[in-house]
Amino acid sequence: MNTSRIFTACHCVLAGAILFSPLAIAQDLEPLPASAAADGDTPEKVELGKKLFFDPRLSATGTVSCNSCHNLMEGGDDSRATSMGVNGLTGPRNAPTVWNSVFQASQFWDGRAETLEEQAKGPMVADVEMGMVGHDQVISRIKEIPGYVDEFAAAFGNGNGVTIENAVKAIAAFERTLITPGSALDRYLAGDTRAMSEAQARGMELFESVGCVECHSGPALNGWHPASDAEFVEFPRYNDLSYTSKYDLETDRGRSKASGDDGDDHHFKVPTLRNITLTAPYLHNGQVPSLDEVCRLMAETQIGVELTDAEVADLVAFMNALQGEFPEITLPRLPVRSGETVIHDSKSFTVGNE
Amino acid sequence: MNTSRIFTACHCVLAGAILFSPLAIAQDLEPLPASAAADGDTPEKVELGKKLFFDPRLSATGTVSCNSCHNLMEGGDDSRATSMGVNGLTGPRNAPTVWNSVFQASQFWDGRAETLEEQAKGPMVADVEMGMVGHDQVISRIKEIPGYVDEFAAAFGNGNGVTIENAVKAIAAFERTLITPGSALDRYLAGDTRAMSEAQARGMELFESVGCVECHSGPALNGWHPASDAEFVEFPRYNDLSYTSKYDLETDRGRSKASGDDGDDHHFKVPTLRNITLTAPYLHNGQVPSLDEVCRLMAETQIGVELTDAEVADLVAFMNALQGEFPEITLPRLPVRSGETVIHDSKSFTVGNE
Repeated sequence: MNTSRIFTACHCVLAGAILFSPLAIAQDLEPLPASAAADGDTPEKVELGKKLFFDPRLSATGTVSCNSCHNLMEGGDDSRATSMGVNGLTGPRNAPTVWNSVFQASQFWDGRAETLEEQAKGPMVADVEMGMVGHDQVISRIKEIPGYVDEFAAAFGNGNGVTIENAVKAIAAFERTLITPGSALDRYLAGDTRAMSEAQARGMELFESVGCVECHSGPALNGWHPASDAEFVEFPRYNDLSYTSKYDLETDRGRSKASGDDGDDHHFKVPTLRNITLTAPYLHNGQVPSLDEVCRLMAETQIGVELTDAEVADLVAFMNALQGEFPEITLPRLPVRSGETVIHDSKSFTVGNE
Repeated sequence: MNTSRIFTACHCVLAGAILFSPLAIAQDLEPLPASAAADGDTPEKVELGKKLFFDPRLSATGTVSCNSCHNLMEGGDDSRATSMGVNGLTGPRNAPTVWNSVFQASQFWDGRAETLEEQAKGPMVADVEMGMVGHDQVISRIKEIPGYVDEFAAAFGNGNGVTIENAVKAIAAFERTLITPGSALDRYLAGDTRAMSEAQARGMELFESVGCVECHSGPALNGWHPASDAEFVEFPRYNDLSYTSKYDLETDRGRSKASGDDGDDHHFKVPTLRNITLTAPYLHNGQVPSLDEVCRLMAETQIGVELTDAEVADLVAFMNALQGEFPEITLPRLPVRSGETVIHDSKSFTVGNE
């Protein structure tokens, strides 16, 4: 770094002491826990939740499942700037990865859901996502499928088994199994100093020294620690840079829209960096196409540091060390209403070229 | 049956002797083969084809994979009257099941593709399905993903591995593994006379005696036999019934659009009845909502027979005996271009309520 950048970096560390918990800085990086089951999670709930997670019939058109935007075959997202829901509609924000989503204090970019359960309720009834008119419609449709009624009863007891609360409990129980331990960083932290390459180790050192770790700390590199409250960070902190207009960083006011507090303007939840190599494009609006570009951008907008090409390369190498091992998932068999579809609004169609 | 219906049925059998191969009637029903691999199918091609089958990045928007409309978690279709492709566009025909699709002499409702390989090329570049502008775009995108380049080389040899011909060979190799043997009918045909219920056995007898089996013969109950040519059947044969307008049976001219031969007007390929309980709604246009309704309709429009409620119930019971055992499929891990997306046209977005 040159002198002016050292000054800028020091300025940030001082600012960081005010903005961020000292605890987060002290704890730095930690291995990813290998399990995260909650009290009450059972194999029956996990299996039911897996089916619901993969079931496109929970959307108005029968075409969009949780997995459509949080694709477990990839980075738990959808490769798109912003997701495409029913009828080709798109929303304003980039789909966050569902992998390791249990390791954060709140859900959505603006943290408006405190739990995985609460989060799972949102997209089902968002008109640009799964487009159901209400949770009653979701439950009504599930109840049309006898196999689901049986599985809800098995997982939650007979009687009023098929409820939205039970549905999201099952989905969340499944999501708590979506953990990717065993990354090069995890092996390194466990004592295998050869687990990371020299470039990755240099990148990790830079990640700490330059200040990325102030926000991206803890096991998921998102500031989260067990039992900690959700923290939100202003983004961009320095908004007089060309990045602001280039990547449209001022349109989305972030947390303030959810909290109603102007003090939360342009604040966002810190996203996990686990498997970040697999989840391009980047940022809340998905406008940044590549990982090296977002490393440069974050250093400048959040820490006021202009990285060299070599530093960017080392940071990207370190990001590669955050790619974990993905559990093997068997494709579920979804229960079907024999001889009848439950997608009742799919009759209208336009004639295309097929 | 009453007298007029016997007359009508006899009329049909006579007509059937002209329309259909006597061989098909003689062979009647057969067990489903347990494998269907072609010369040259290898585990590497099957695994690569599986990834391509599940990969939504083969569509313009990154949202539609083969599996979107041919969902292997269900009946190999999508529960919809007609499928929804990119940008919410829909086409005119119902998605046929991909399960056991190797056991037919041609593909698509109008048989315009002779092989699975040729079929797989179609939806990628259909503007209401996967919407790619051409196969060059498909190949260009696959080549952007280093993991795929390696897998094509491993499956097809170094050099010019990533081609559309190789891509569809891999997809077809995977599709040839999508077989569902072990149904109650298969166990019955193998000598286990208790495999089918009394209602199912009555339904099978009716299926043969009333004439359904004239078209729906052979291992997949679609008239297909190894090395046989594709056959197409006029539908509806009796088009002066209320069904014609109720379910819009005259709009789609079927095979003639593909062959250019007016003699093929309103001719369609006979669809398989394997797993038919799982693939509602029914017919080429997906306009018939339930299995019992389509049994009544087919008997009247094709054989001129009006079934009793008890007969419909027995036929539907027999259809349940055609549900096979589905192979366990492990969710593939799709290769990713590290730190970059390959969906380059996803930047535009509209602001919704999320």
